Amino acid sequence: MYPKKVYINGKITASEDARISVFDRGFIFGDGVYEVIAKINGRLFYKDAHLNRLRWCLEQIRIDVDVTALESDIPALLEVSGLADEDCLIYFQVTRGVAPRQHSFPENIKPTVMMYAWPKKLPDINSTDASVISCEDYRWSRCDIKSTSLLGNILANEEAMRNEAYETVFIRDGVITEASHCNIFFVKDGIVYTHPRGPFILDGITRQVVLELCQKLNIDYREEAVSALDLKKMDEAFLTGTSTQIMAIKKFDEHYFYQQEKGPVTRRLQEAFMRLKS
Amino acid sequence: MYPKKVYINGKITASEDARISVFDRGFIFGDGVYEVIAKINGRLFYKDAHLNRLRWCLEQIRIDVDVTALESDIPALLEVSGLADEDCLIYFQVTRGVAPRQHSFPENIKPTVMMYAWPKKLPDINSTDASVISCEDYRWSRCDIKSTSLLGNILANEEAMRNEAYETVFIRDGVITEASHCNIFFVKDGIVYTHPRGPFILDGITRQVVLELCQKLNIDYREEAVSALDLKKMDEAFLTGTSTQIMAIKKFDEHYFYQQEKGPVTRRLQEAFMRLKS
Repeated sequence: MYPKKVYINGKITASEDARISVFDRGFIFGDGVYEVIAKINGRLFYKDAHLNRLRWCLEQIRIDVDVTALESDIPALLEVSGLADEDCLIYFQVTRGVAPRQHSFPENIKPTVMMYAWPKKLPDINSTDASVISCEDYRWSRCDIKSTSLLGNILANEEAMRNEAYETVFIRDGVITEASHCNIFFVKDGIVYTHPRGPFILDGITRQVVLELCQKLNIDYREEAVSALDLKKMDEAFLTGTSTQIMAIKKFDEHYFYQQEKGPVTRRLQEAFMRLKS
Repeated sequence: MYPKKVYINGKITASEDARISVFDRGFIFGDGVYEVIAKINGRLFYKDAHLNRLRWCLEQIRIDVDVTALESDIPALLEVSGLADEDCLIYFQVTRGVAPRQHSFPENIKPTVMMYAWPKKLPDINSTDASVISCEDYRWSRCDIKSTSLLGNILANEEAMRNEAYETVFIRDGVITEASHCNIFFVKDGIVYTHPRGPFILDGITRQVVLELCQKLNIDYREEAVSALDLKKMDEAFLTGTSTQIMAIKKFDEHYFYQQEKGPVTRRLQEAFMRLKS
């Protein structure tokens, strides 16, 4: 569904009028970054963490944008979008701007800043039993940058859909990294495992929240990659993401983690996560 | 420099009016492919090879566009661009089209097809003495797809500019693959070497032409990757690309291939390439 309104460089227009130059480097080169924030019960959930990640990503690709100024424009966007009092998702995208096509950075161009919001009521607890498939991680080695050059993720996600799965999970050099738009966690003997931060995964905000919850709940966790060979030895697995929240994985390729009831650690984390939102 | 006119989905408009929806998946996801063809002395140089590569790339990412119909619209674009009788470059870009943001392919959407041309007189022989720098090939493993998800290439090319170099050459698993928008060749004891076709390089049309020229000129060639460790043992090196043509590499990081005169094999190939254009 299209949002009602779109903010572009300080102006808000109807969605159908929201257009940019074909010379925007976002269109020509995928030369931009993005962010998604959920508004839940009147609050932008982990807003500072999301906006700080946006700042960090902009620094990584050397785009200079005042994220604090952008933040101050969010209420006006929500107001005209009719979402001031609704749960919604807010999408942010910043590109290097408009210039004649050349690979290197043009001088003195103004970044393109876009945001829009659409109504979305996230469930208290994500009750989906996810199936996932896996493939070689053929993406670049800077997956920590939340870039709009997403073709690799797109193609992998499409494969999931064609296989009636929710996600495609990537395996790089034999270890499980993340999924096309989620992070992934495993549980073995009560200990939670997820791939360490670094260039091979996006350091998801929900990923960080889950690690904080593990600390609070006295659940042991290790930021260690799980080998694809050890997959079947794991007791539980789940995905995390801003709109995915915490989603139990029932089936991973041909392996079932459960048939009826998701695992107890996944459940405990989901319940604790739900309480954070209230 | 901006082109005069831009073709979008069958309509030709002034450059400054050439706009697309912000929901174009080219803008949101880098979900598209592109092509560049040079018009030289009244001919589209290796047109069929370029258009067939465009067809192949579209198939790889499952976008269905009639490239033959697009081809038939080129003369009208050149005419209104004032380039019917001029040497120029023609840029083509196809994206999956406009849809609300979702990673997987939306159903029943129409691809966005864009092309534009701008005057460009390529020199008979590229007399540039190129300096290049090198870095780890951190791009994805489907570099054979000429995708617009180019952030990795962009960042590498920008590093070249900051180091007063023409290009950044990538090294993957210890071997030299290609550069940010060129292929790379080496010469050793009269034999020409370049990375074999496959997912780690774009199979450049000029790359193919150079291999054909080697055959014609009875120059031995091998599609074998050169190890970064063997770089200094090579006698000559050159870059190839549609607008780069054949460009001798003088300096590679701190190593000089020559001081005054480029190597004889590079020179011979440049001269043979020049004759193809007349």
